Amino acid sequence: MASVNHSVVMSTTHDKLINSLTTLQGLSSWWTKETSGSTNVGDVIEFRFGGSGFDMKVLKSNENSVLWEVIAGPDEWIGTRVNFDIRNHEKGVILYFAHTGWEEESEFHHHCSMKWATFLLSLKDYLEKGAGKPYPDDG
Amino acid sequence: MASVNHSVVMSTTHDKLINSLTTLQGLSSWWTKETSGSTNVGDVIEFRFGGSGFDMKVLKSNENSVLWEVIAGPDEWIGTRVNFDIRNHEKGVILYFAHTGWEEESEFHHHCSMKWATFLLSLKDYLEKGAGKPYPDDG
Repeated sequence: MASVNHSVVMSTTHDKLINSLTTLQGLSSWWTKETSGSTNVGDVIEFRFGGSGFDMKVLKSNENSVLWEVIAGPDEWIGTRVNFDIRNHEKGVILYFAHTGWEEESEFHHHCSMKWATFLLSLKDYLEKGAGKPYPDDG
Repeated sequence: MASVNHSVVMSTTHDKLINSLTTLQGLSSWWTKETSGSTNVGDVIEFRFGGSGFDMKVLKSNENSVLWEVIAGPDEWIGTRVNFDIRNHEKGVILYFAHTGWEEESEFHHHCSMKWATFLLSLKDYLEKGAGKPYPDDG
């Protein structure tokens, strides 16, 4: 099994970060503008990127942690899990990100690791500067 | 064992990318300005970041691939390996990066994965725009 792991420090509040991970408006501000569905536990969020994309079932959502399971999307993503953990940090908050359950360290795994990094930096910019670069603005 | 894997497409030539990975001038343009030593196979490159840093023994260096082993630095890095593979791509070249041999997916592993991503984007900017953000300009 392989994972993608990242952490990023953000000069923002715990509440604002959680809001960015648990609302359609928040998620569409840093990952993809094509975000729909419901962010409640047990419901499904649909993320699209010009047609293709991912459906995530929300397994957990509280003030410190958000966990999704991929139920539709590319084969390599099906059944994997995406986890966000938030902790306090002297500069604001630190986000620990983990996309777990990859079967192998494939070329797509390499690609997605870099893309997750750039989207998490988009999240940081959204919270610190007011504007992220969600798809299709991700360049 | 855990790894950090990334890929990034760059609008540049194969030769320019290899030069950025196999010369002190190249390496100091995107990773850290505090780069010294020798990039020949069997020799050691010293990368410093305001005092601390890493010593890398060059295990392989050819036109398609560069492989280093960490022989000094933080405990979690000792014995790990850093690999760069270059392939042609319709937009120029694609770099496959792998930092392998981590004992666990620690907090430091999360941190380093994100830092590698930002430094690889610095490498992309250096080659595409003429200026990267090597330490201490990495923000």
